[in-house]
Amino acid sequence: MLATILHGARDVRCEEVSEPKIQKPTDAIIRLSASCICGSDLWPFRGLNDVKAPMAMGHEYCGIVEEVGSAVKTVHPGQFVVGSFCISDNTCPHCRFGFQSSCEQREFMSGAQAPLARVPLADGTLVATAELPPDDLIPSLLATSDVLGTGWYAAAAAQVQPGSTVVVVGDGAVGLMGVLAAKQMEAGRIIAMSRHKARQELALEYGATHIISERGDEGVARIKQLTNGVGADAVLECVGTQESMTQALQCARPGSMIGYVGVPHGVQFDGQQLFFSQVGMLGGPAPVRRFLPHLMDLVLERKINPGKVFDLELPLAEVAEGYRAMDERRAIKTLLRV
Amino acid sequence: MLATILHGARDVRCEEVSEPKIQKPTDAIIRLSASCICGSDLWPFRGLNDVKAPMAMGHEYCGIVEEVGSAVKTVHPGQFVVGSFCISDNTCPHCRFGFQSSCEQREFMSGAQAPLARVPLADGTLVATAELPPDDLIPSLLATSDVLGTGWYAAAAAQVQPGSTVVVVGDGAVGLMGVLAAKQMEAGRIIAMSRHKARQELALEYGATHIISERGDEGVARIKQLTNGVGADAVLECVGTQESMTQALQCARPGSMIGYVGVPHGVQFDGQQLFFSQVGMLGGPAPVRRFLPHLMDLVLERKINPGKVFDLELPLAEVAEGYRAMDERRAIKTLLRV
Repeated sequence: MLATILHGARDVRCEEVSEPKIQKPTDAIIRLSASCICGSDLWPFRGLNDVKAPMAMGHEYCGIVEEVGSAVKTVHPGQFVVGSFCISDNTCPHCRFGFQSSCEQREFMSGAQAPLARVPLADGTLVATAELPPDDLIPSLLATSDVLGTGWYAAAAAQVQPGSTVVVVGDGAVGLMGVLAAKQMEAGRIIAMSRHKARQELALEYGATHIISERGDEGVARIKQLTNGVGADAVLECVGTQESMTQALQCARPGSMIGYVGVPHGVQFDGQQLFFSQVGMLGGPAPVRRFLPHLMDLVLERKINPGKVFDLELPLAEVAEGYRAMDERRAIKTLLRV
Repeated sequence: MLATILHGARDVRCEEVSEPKIQKPTDAIIRLSASCICGSDLWPFRGLNDVKAPMAMGHEYCGIVEEVGSAVKTVHPGQFVVGSFCISDNTCPHCRFGFQSSCEQREFMSGAQAPLARVPLADGTLVATAELPPDDLIPSLLATSDVLGTGWYAAAAAQVQPGSTVVVVGDGAVGLMGVLAAKQMEAGRIIAMSRHKARQELALEYGATHIISERGDEGVARIKQLTNGVGADAVLECVGTQESMTQALQCARPGSMIGYVGVPHGVQFDGQQLFFSQVGMLGGPAPVRRFLPHLMDLVLERKINPGKVFDLELPLAEVAEGYRAMDERRAIKTLLRV
């Protein structure tokens, strides 16, 4: 089959690989309904993570179960399933605590920018729908696998409360999903920090009440102005750079929480500065599995439309263009027809 | 009057100064029932903070109101009061949010290692008792002013829940108060990390269920062993060094919170490491004012005995010996009779 392999910085190829096989009795093979490119895929694509060997790309997935290993009990061939980008058994103490992304058997999904993928720990990882969903919901269901689940976790970790003032730093796909999540959690004001017209519009559609296009000190000053000098009740950090993290910290009121989900690259915190800010922080790879059933229900009930975050759709063979479009910010997020 | 002045590293003197006066209509002057030395006083004493001018030491206090400014409404001369080491108006948005230690008018108390002290923003800062408390409760009431309130905040920030497993890093006075707080919050297991016999005993008396004397990797291994490899549900970091903070991070389970109240000195966090640990953090100068009425009630009802943390009592004139005893760890905390 054709699959997406990253060979080095800016060298992503759609090439022939052998089809995945059941390797362990707990595996499933799924035929993807669609796949997509994640903002985090851009780190290795840009050469910011070392790529030592060819990498099978893709960790967001939904589709039809093709085959299951002998130990798999809860899903069976023919079912439509979504799974998290973090593979988890959903039974260990970390999973039961709601942190499936720290599962004792955690693996990170890979190889999902392809027509078929192997999902380890299928029972713990996959969530099946009662019936096959209509085609038009596939993009939104695919979004629950990572980008929505991650934005949702940012809002949960930031402890968004009904009526609260929420700042979302980052207008990438995850930031936009953070806006959607804050809206669902009934935030009173949702301030999206964005300089790009298309993203501003989508943020507004997802529930943003304010758009701030300034960055750095000016951006912080605008937030302070909007909050009578107090700062935001909750901040979602959805980028992962020192600049974005500093902005998040300066926007947050003492006693508030920052939910940070952009994988930090080169970010350092000074302990004493963090201490005197009195701002709390919780982040990490999102435990999407915790939220997945609820998020899938919201999609199936057509209460949310996260799939709108895909503003570019390409056949798998053109995956390299999908990476380039996101890298150059010509696209928010690329959906791949596999 | 005689008061405590720090002139430079290891040069603390009890010397004659003029009595404090009302400077603003919102001030009060109190006659201290007792004073004490804080672990944080040791930072400048040890030369780890710059001392550019002579510093009037002491920020923990309780006593009888001697005089109030013309704008003070809620306390009056003759009342017994306790106040936080953080001066606050208790009306600004930060105070109403429960973070009085970030009050818009915040000042840090000083000059309380003396028989008389000026307390700014008396209405917002001081809490009066209904009647004069018995003498034997003075040490415990004094403790609510900072050391107990700070240990309590560590437990609150770490989100200690009934039945949970709590680790307290640091066996200084604040750590011991953290043990007491976790016990009051009905933690199931309270693991105190301590190598000093007298402190271990007090930790046990305050509710510790386990003592771990190992540090570093060995200490972490013991915690992991006690928690089936999972880590603690809540960690109280009560020291403020890189070593203690690293230990706290390594003891904490993913999804748990570290409440950190030791003022960080030379502590740096790597963003990516913190991210993948999935451990949350909330710290800062404790908003003692939030907890003060409750803590004073617990003392007055004789439900807790935080005053037992004072294991050395000296007249004010011997304050320098009090600093030395704490610096050399001969004393946990020094009470000063003023």
